Amino acid sequence: MIALDADAMARELAEFAAIPSVSALPEHRADVARAAAWAAERLARAGVTEVEVVDTGGHPAVLGRWGPPDAPAVLIYGHYDVQPADPLDAWETPPFSPTVRDGRMYGRGTSDDKGPIVCALAGIEALLRGPRPPVDVQLKFLLEGEEEIGSPHLPALVARERDRLACALAISADGGMWRASEPSLNISAKGLANVEVEVVTAAADLHSGRHGGAVPNALHALAEVVAGLHRPDGSVAVAGFYDRVRPPTEGQRRELAALPFSEADYRAEVGVEALVGEAGYTALERLWLRPTLDVVGMWGGFVQEGMKTVIPARAHAKISCRLVPDQEPEEIQRLLCAHLEGHSPRGARVIARPVPGTARPYALPADYPPLALASQVLERTLGGRTLLVRMGGTLPMAELVQRELGARTLFFSFSVSDERYHAPNEFFRLERLAPGAQAWYDLLAGIGPALAAARA
Amino acid sequence: MIALDADAMARELAEFAAIPSVSALPEHRADVARAAAWAAERLARAGVTEVEVVDTGGHPAVLGRWGPPDAPAVLIYGHYDVQPADPLDAWETPPFSPTVRDGRMYGRGTSDDKGPIVCALAGIEALLRGPRPPVDVQLKFLLEGEEEIGSPHLPALVARERDRLACALAISADGGMWRASEPSLNISAKGLANVEVEVVTAAADLHSGRHGGAVPNALHALAEVVAGLHRPDGSVAVAGFYDRVRPPTEGQRRELAALPFSEADYRAEVGVEALVGEAGYTALERLWLRPTLDVVGMWGGFVQEGMKTVIPARAHAKISCRLVPDQEPEEIQRLLCAHLEGHSPRGARVIARPVPGTARPYALPADYPPLALASQVLERTLGGRTLLVRMGGTLPMAELVQRELGARTLFFSFSVSDERYHAPNEFFRLERLAPGAQAWYDLLAGIGPALAAARA
Repeated sequence: MIALDADAMARELAEFAAIPSVSALPEHRADVARAAAWAAERLARAGVTEVEVVDTGGHPAVLGRWGPPDAPAVLIYGHYDVQPADPLDAWETPPFSPTVRDGRMYGRGTSDDKGPIVCALAGIEALLRGPRPPVDVQLKFLLEGEEEIGSPHLPALVARERDRLACALAISADGGMWRASEPSLNISAKGLANVEVEVVTAAADLHSGRHGGAVPNALHALAEVVAGLHRPDGSVAVAGFYDRVRPPTEGQRRELAALPFSEADYRAEVGVEALVGEAGYTALERLWLRPTLDVVGMWGGFVQEGMKTVIPARAHAKISCRLVPDQEPEEIQRLLCAHLEGHSPRGARVIARPVPGTARPYALPADYPPLALASQVLERTLGGRTLLVRMGGTLPMAELVQRELGARTLFFSFSVSDERYHAPNEFFRLERLAPGAQAWYDLLAGIGPALAAARA
Repeated sequence: MIALDADAMARELAEFAAIPSVSALPEHRADVARAAAWAAERLARAGVTEVEVVDTGGHPAVLGRWGPPDAPAVLIYGHYDVQPADPLDAWETPPFSPTVRDGRMYGRGTSDDKGPIVCALAGIEALLRGPRPPVDVQLKFLLEGEEEIGSPHLPALVARERDRLACALAISADGGMWRASEPSLNISAKGLANVEVEVVTAAADLHSGRHGGAVPNALHALAEVVAGLHRPDGSVAVAGFYDRVRPPTEGQRRELAALPFSEADYRAEVGVEALVGEAGYTALERLWLRPTLDVVGMWGGFVQEGMKTVIPARAHAKISCRLVPDQEPEEIQRLLCAHLEGHSPRGARVIARPVPGTARPYALPADYPPLALASQVLERTLGGRTLLVRMGGTLPMAELVQRELGARTLFFSFSVSDERYHAPNEFFRLERLAPGAQAWYDLLAGIGPALAAARA
């Protein structure tokens, strides 16, 4: 076991998570840059020798390198940007004043992805500390600041820095474990395709008394369009949406059915009265193997306190699709826009636009040798049996690394999926800091032989 | 013809409309009080002798009186509160900086109802100016500051001041003419019943990647609920909604069909591509004789710039119903709340609450004698033939005056229904200021005999 100061790690996480690095909001641009500078300084302090904050055209990225240039390389990935914190009034303590309660640190980004990055860097600092580090690979680093907005500038950066980032394997500090009760490794990530919709029914808002009963209402039209996005059986009603989706194999269905998963526990965990979704699939199959469509925001008309008796002329929605192999994000955006514009209710004009920042789905073969090493390391540091699971979250970098660098990605994160990523009162379990750092140490110390086995 | 200074009237309207007396928004409370003080001062300057700003428990009202206490009384009504101005960026000039373009004054409240009040007060000032005013009735005044929020405190005020407000007839400066091309008198007003809805699906917003496909989405549920408020034939789907509605008589249908009304012109006027609504009725019948339901605001999830991939746990809507005789607003609120809560989609809890500030529908008999006088006065001052029309707008005071004071209400307003009440770029036609004042002068000078005829 290496010597780790968990309190110092917690203080470090509090400092990192206090930076409101919200990549989606222009007013936080300087904060994302501040988080990049923080990460670069931390990498250098860990002993990484070639650290650079690089311009991407959007929010900056941080690159780094350590070790003999002719050794096989491992590329370590994470992101220091975070989701917006709204609704603010739902937070028990302010999102950017990290607060410890009952062994958990509450704050936006503590779990996604700053806590897991702190684990990785503490482990790497311990690894590089002595005169002869027990690691026989090169370490490369790619930390980005646009993950939460779909990494719009990452593809160009990776293409431009292809030589500098070349690697035999990427290891991601992003991703998250399935549950707190046992270790797990993600072997797949969904893709992402977003669309924005506007519905226009009149030149201006109209008085509901003067014109009610004769003129179209943009909110009624939008509700009809949104209600029509799913069929009564819960499937997505967009023509062609499932065309490239492979049905689950019997093996996959058995594998998922064998996992310890209780729908009642899951309902209680997320606080819902009933599970919904596509008929004919179990909840785990819908979560992990099936593509989904969710309206993430919708608005129009008078939304303040009080009443305004108006027939709204415009209404808006933002739609997000989670994709599985072999769906293509741009094709899904095209199909969805065509569906929306082709289902304009009478008197309404529906305008749909693809939102930049797509991600392709990704999957890792279950028999990939570094998975076995990672499983053992997790069992040694966290206890319990490591489960191989799938997750609905998007990891655009994995598909990108595969395409541009020809390398696979191992998801090795110490956050847990119940830690309210993207929601109010996000938290990170502080008890995972030291084991997480130990696990990164052990994984990197043993990764050379595992990569040799993968090549064999 | 009386001597009137139209420029001075326009300056006066600009001053009145510059007060942002938005009754729906708490931050404008002092502005509504300022508009009350302005109106009280103006009444006194017009020669009204007993003017008082009275507390209502909400926004203040202004009362006034002039003339021999034993003469029959006419109660003059108007309101100095205005609708909220949002969306602000849709205004060509700021809503509370009244601006004249092409003979129109643009600004929130210029048409609803400050311009029409300026007409009435200029006419009354001329009437009371000389030593022997040519009027043989008492004049009473009731100007309120809560019309745009459904007059929540007016019933208690009128009940408390029943003796002071007792009258043979009320004349409202609120209401608006049908079109600019010929004079018209409204003989009916719709009632109002508002409801607020909240949909809850989970304890907190959830990550759309982690949970998409298995958990309910509050926006999907709200869209389904809203889409279900109308049947495919355009009728309102709420059980019992039409139970008390009298079908239009053959006479009413002939009367409406005979009015000069072009659906194409109306579509162009309001800027819509198609008319919609309840099947089996003409557009005028739907506008004037049929009750309606409109969602006036709807929101939930991430509504800022950018994307947040979240499954919203809560969604909201505000619903407004326009009622016809003999619908009861509280009953409609009950039916609508029951419908909403009874149609909760799977996994969603729908909570519906009545919004205070209802209004009952109102209608004036077409053969009521003061209508004939008002028709003649309008034809003399504006030219053209006066049409008797119905309007969808709500005038809660008319039903209240009938109930509490046993008097009918004549709607005598110089605004026109195309003047964008409740919408951006509301305006008032300045050419109506002087004729409007003259018409008020003529109407009040002749009202004594008309009231005698009505009593006979």
